[in-house]
Amino acid sequence: MIAVLRLGHRVERDKRLTTHVGLVARAFGAEIMYYTGDRDETVERTIDEVVRRWGGSFRADYVESWRNLLKQWPGKKIHLTVYGLPLRKVIDEVKALYIRGEQLLVVVGGEKVEGGVFRLADFNVAITSQPHSEAAALAVFLDWLQEGRELERVYDDARILVEPSERGKKIFKR
Amino acid sequence: MIAVLRLGHRVERDKRLTTHVGLVARAFGAEIMYYTGDRDETVERTIDEVVRRWGGSFRADYVESWRNLLKQWPGKKIHLTVYGLPLRKVIDEVKALYIRGEQLLVVVGGEKVEGGVFRLADFNVAITSQPHSEAAALAVFLDWLQEGRELERVYDDARILVEPSERGKKIFKR
Repeated sequence: MIAVLRLGHRVERDKRLTTHVGLVARAFGAEIMYYTGDRDETVERTIDEVVRRWGGSFRADYVESWRNLLKQWPGKKIHLTVYGLPLRKVIDEVKALYIRGEQLLVVVGGEKVEGGVFRLADFNVAITSQPHSEAAALAVFLDWLQEGRELERVYDDARILVEPSERGKKIFKR
Repeated sequence: MIAVLRLGHRVERDKRLTTHVGLVARAFGAEIMYYTGDRDETVERTIDEVVRRWGGSFRADYVESWRNLLKQWPGKKIHLTVYGLPLRKVIDEVKALYIRGEQLLVVVGGEKVEGGVFRLADFNVAITSQPHSEAAALAVFLDWLQEGRELERVYDDARILVEPSERGKKIFKR
């Protein structure tokens, strides 16, 4: 089981970025995105609407304290940060934990990440050592973790289905 | 050589998303991001500032017409879209072109992508068949294309260098 924690959401400024982190979490096989910072019903509603149409049971849940969530988390915590160890160095170890059935919490930052996150994480992992995007870092990490198996996932309860196509849009609604 | 085209940028609304697409393009080995829609100096300045501090020669360039860019592009054009063929189906063919030295233009959408983009692209590729994030789709595509080699890239002219660390932030400025 994979969960995601998005830190330090700010209403308005981060609305679309946090929504993207949530949609990436869902599309790449996580079950839930927790988020801290400002509670934002727009983000939660947008994600609910995607789930209703595209299937599955993913959801976004606000939590007050990242510290409590990290301290109480029953499995391993992986913090994605430019300051961490290279993905290639840690991925085999994390993959082994995942295959063994550990519950993984993947943490991605907002603007400033407090030192406690680095200390409470079991792994601090860098997806390149360059600044870019938390949605992108999350996607690449989850893709390596699951070796691309997540890319072809189909949702049985989807109301919208895409039929892959060389050119053009083939979409079914039911 | 890899270039990126980001379609349909809207000032304010997309400022941070387009900046993230640009930073992902840079961090994952592209040389340039072209963008259409509204010209936005904030995006260009933010990316210039990252390049000045973190190294390399990446830049963001506004273009008026995606149609002209696609028509005149000397190499192959790969459009990332939820409607396209699965990544696994096309990646070997694209990789072969890349290794042969073809100039690749990777196209990512904004809100609505016009039909002409699907028709002018040599490949329409889906990074999952679920809605998520153009920054994430771009990162995963470039990661598969380069088989993860881009993750450890170092810039000789960087003013900021991160030393990978298990816990905490180790950063050098020069």
